[in-house]
Amino acid sequence: MSFELSLNTGTTPNLTLEQAVEAVAASGLKHIGPWRHLLEQAGGAEKASAIIADAGLTASTLCRGGFLTPADADGRRAALESNRAAIREAAMIGTAELIMVVGGLPAAAHLLAGSGDAAQKMSADKDILGARGRVAEGLAELVPYAAEHGVRLVLEPLHPMYAADRAVLSTLGEALDLAAPHPAETVGVVVDTFHVWWDPQLREMIARAGSEQRIASYQVCDFNLPLAADALKSRGMMGDGYVDFPTISRWVAEAGYTGPVEVEIFNQAINDQDASTTLETMTQRYEQLVLPSLEQALARTPA
Amino acid sequence: MSFELSLNTGTTPNLTLEQAVEAVAASGLKHIGPWRHLLEQAGGAEKASAIIADAGLTASTLCRGGFLTPADADGRRAALESNRAAIREAAMIGTAELIMVVGGLPAAAHLLAGSGDAAQKMSADKDILGARGRVAEGLAELVPYAAEHGVRLVLEPLHPMYAADRAVLSTLGEALDLAAPHPAETVGVVVDTFHVWWDPQLREMIARAGSEQRIASYQVCDFNLPLAADALKSRGMMGDGYVDFPTISRWVAEAGYTGPVEVEIFNQAINDQDASTTLETMTQRYEQLVLPSLEQALARTPA
Repeated sequence: MSFELSLNTGTTPNLTLEQAVEAVAASGLKHIGPWRHLLEQAGGAEKASAIIADAGLTASTLCRGGFLTPADADGRRAALESNRAAIREAAMIGTAELIMVVGGLPAAAHLLAGSGDAAQKMSADKDILGARGRVAEGLAELVPYAAEHGVRLVLEPLHPMYAADRAVLSTLGEALDLAAPHPAETVGVVVDTFHVWWDPQLREMIARAGSEQRIASYQVCDFNLPLAADALKSRGMMGDGYVDFPTISRWVAEAGYTGPVEVEIFNQAINDQDASTTLETMTQRYEQLVLPSLEQALARTPA
Repeated sequence: MSFELSLNTGTTPNLTLEQAVEAVAASGLKHIGPWRHLLEQAGGAEKASAIIADAGLTASTLCRGGFLTPADADGRRAALESNRAAIREAAMIGTAELIMVVGGLPAAAHLLAGSGDAAQKMSADKDILGARGRVAEGLAELVPYAAEHGVRLVLEPLHPMYAADRAVLSTLGEALDLAAPHPAETVGVVVDTFHVWWDPQLREMIARAGSEQRIASYQVCDFNLPLAADALKSRGMMGDGYVDFPTISRWVAEAGYTGPVEVEIFNQAINDQDASTTLETMTQRYEQLVLPSLEQALARTPA
């Protein structure tokens, strides 16, 4: 089956892995994309794997590795260590796709803490080119380990509003350039509508990602305004915001992607509501706004 | 003189044009970038022109035209009308540079009002490709009128967080593509650090803008986190946020730009403080973080 819906557990942050798995299974879906902390809470990746498999589900992705931008040697070593653990966990729960949020500027830790005087703020490390260089280096170090474990490092371009504190990787084109030196089965990209819907090169870069066999995941959620007080929570249920889902979904299917489609929504109201309500609404909206375009494009694609 | 500092009146929104002009002149600066509503408050562009000239200042830009994305004929007609008035006003106050914020999605008016049920929200016009097409059409209609008046339409790519409600134009590369069919003396671009600092193609696109003679203005302000409750007001004094001013300024000067450098900061605390304090701080920060790189790059440039 193509285009099967998956719940990313970021959408139901109040649930344990067991609860999320139970809700997903009850709703009739077959896939779940867990976050790493849920694996830990469940007693480790092996137990998590059993919880997922026992319910008849498969893991569509694991969220998340990355954060490769520390400028100091200790920070870099810790980041690589954490990513190797994430790679092992992904393999253990049976997904090939480890989502990577690459990390922000070193200045962020300092400036967000609100510490330091004006001179210290001015001299904090804001070298985004340097940070991007460290992401490329860290990725190169992780690729052999990921390949050994049959896991793909899935680069996630984040919306540019998060470039300072979360990901110096902001566009799909940049993600593909970063992936280019590595085999497609070991470094991929995710198309997350919230992050990339505005990109004037989106159509071209989705097509390129497809032709390079790099599309590892398609994640759908809407871009809401006004932005939430916590900017991370500005994501919305499909249809409530500004994303043109039929168009982007068509491009994704035309690029040859037929895998699971994950719903990952950080939004206070949605996160707080009953998971069965969320699963019901997201399934309806998916069937209205996303799936028809995917299926039509697939039907038109020469076999 | 190269790289003369200019106050964009968006930084001092509580001042009338006369007050802003007086504060700028008292601080020793020579340029001001007024917003259109200040001209109107001052009794029209002719009077505004006299106020600026009598203080020995020149207008570096006029903010702003644009908003060319309405989908209905009446909306389009009104937008063109308003832009023609802005072109006349720019000519009247003696600046060639009319900053253009191109407008957001038609859905924004509807969704931001919070009206309508889920079905209406889902069916609102979210066609960003269509909106961009209308911007190109509107621009083509305005170019002859701007040329007659000796005014340049200066396309401003806005940060992608404003793509839904303010500008479907999000990158410098897209602005240059939009400008390409028109003469460089009639359609230009502005490099505003807040909007473009994150762009992985920034260096290349600033160089392209320079080689195409399109850089009409360089605007500096910082990108602050956390985002302000009103996302528009997340701009910061240079040095307080995440922008690497020395690097971007070097690129701008290497691209051949030597004109005024405007400071445009929407930030509640800065907007509320005494204008003389703002002018003093912005001058200091400019001389620390921006001007040295501009001058060094200019000195290295072959004559």
